[in-house]
Amino acid sequence: MSSNNLPRLEVCLSPALLHLFDTKDAVVVIIDVFRATSTIAAALDNGATSIIPVASVQECIELGQQIENSITAGERNGQIAEGLEHGNSPSEYPKEFISGKTLVLTTTNGTRLLHMVEDAAEIVTGSFLNLSAVSDYLAGCNKNVLLACASWKDRFNLEDTLFAGAVVSNVADKFDINCDSTIAAQQLFQSIDIEHPIEFLRNGSHYKRLSVYGLESDMEYCTMIDKHNVLPILRDGKLVANSH
Amino acid sequence: MSSNNLPRLEVCLSPALLHLFDTKDAVVVIIDVFRATSTIAAALDNGATSIIPVASVQECIELGQQIENSITAGERNGQIAEGLEHGNSPSEYPKEFISGKTLVLTTTNGTRLLHMVEDAAEIVTGSFLNLSAVSDYLAGCNKNVLLACASWKDRFNLEDTLFAGAVVSNVADKFDINCDSTIAAQQLFQSIDIEHPIEFLRNGSHYKRLSVYGLESDMEYCTMIDKHNVLPILRDGKLVANSH
Repeated sequence: MSSNNLPRLEVCLSPALLHLFDTKDAVVVIIDVFRATSTIAAALDNGATSIIPVASVQECIELGQQIENSITAGERNGQIAEGLEHGNSPSEYPKEFISGKTLVLTTTNGTRLLHMVEDAAEIVTGSFLNLSAVSDYLAGCNKNVLLACASWKDRFNLEDTLFAGAVVSNVADKFDINCDSTIAAQQLFQSIDIEHPIEFLRNGSHYKRLSVYGLESDMEYCTMIDKHNVLPILRDGKLVANSH
Repeated sequence: MSSNNLPRLEVCLSPALLHLFDTKDAVVVIIDVFRATSTIAAALDNGATSIIPVASVQECIELGQQIENSITAGERNGQIAEGLEHGNSPSEYPKEFISGKTLVLTTTNGTRLLHMVEDAAEIVTGSFLNLSAVSDYLAGCNKNVLLACASWKDRFNLEDTLFAGAVVSNVADKFDINCDSTIAAQQLFQSIDIEHPIEFLRNGSHYKRLSVYGLESDMEYCTMIDKHNVLPILRDGKLVANSH
């Protein structure tokens, strides 16, 4: 806690900078807007029992074989990875398909970061699809918070940072902010058309990269604010919808 | 070079991310607005023969003893370091004092980064004090460019990123930009009162940290655009004013 008795709010722009932050007893929000944490919000909101984030395709396949009523999913280079059943698109998981099932998910950047934070008090995941759920939870948590951007291969990432800025804009008055990346993310978000973040994000390298695979509508989906307003929270290695 | 035949323009937000960028044969701009690269611009513009950036206080003292007509300078924690003669403030180096002398300078973040980039085609230093000189040089260089923020102990830094954004705004049409930190820095700069960057920078952690030492006027000085419009370029380990 800082001298003004408010907890800290910080933004980590890349997993390569994570060592600079103290995550002990903090709430860490994992952010991978394109598309892991968007898919997680959609699947949980549509009734998935839980989502198990794993680092490798092999681990994904093995867990899928062990767990009854599970779906394996994950992409590499924008394609469903060999040996898995589904991709990393939030629109692949409508209620009639995912309800009551366990989703075993591996992604390139998001799940990796999730496994890097071990001493946190709580780990939740955030995306535009569940912006309010994340913001409301943080505003009431009374703990230090780190917004952790998954980024792209450790590179600073426009959409993850923009979402971090959206959260900061919502909860700034509940926290002590003495972190330049937090200030910059907030300024960035407030400088764009906040009703339509996709307009700004079309400039980004990730948008261009995924467009090559025809994923434009997928990315538009990922920037719909509060479409799947659930709070995924990590419990025993599984992301479940927070019941509070 | 990219497919559109324009060279790349990228921004590295922290020395901890430098390994993600290819600096070979590129022009690298070292940015440490508060205050190393501001002091370098001021001293060179005021007639210093050259500036020798060194990593340690000890090296600074030894070189000062070897080089005739030299000044040793550097701070640690906002104070002149023990054994050195002067600090890291651009206003300490007026013409009548520094003209014709060699400045041996050690700083916490800026000089360290300068020594991390060894394969670059050219290394120059940038600050608001020489924004146009840097921009004009880059616009005409026809090489890949990396704007490298010194940051604060590897943490993302508001003033260095803002200056990078000012440069991007000036030269964007001469480059291929497919780097999210470049886009974000430009957006950040264009979202503030660009005539008075200090107004926005007062929110930053570095401003607050240096204010404790009474350095507010120093930081205002560092944000005066083009007051010392010289281009410091590295030649044989020394920063000299570019003659072209």
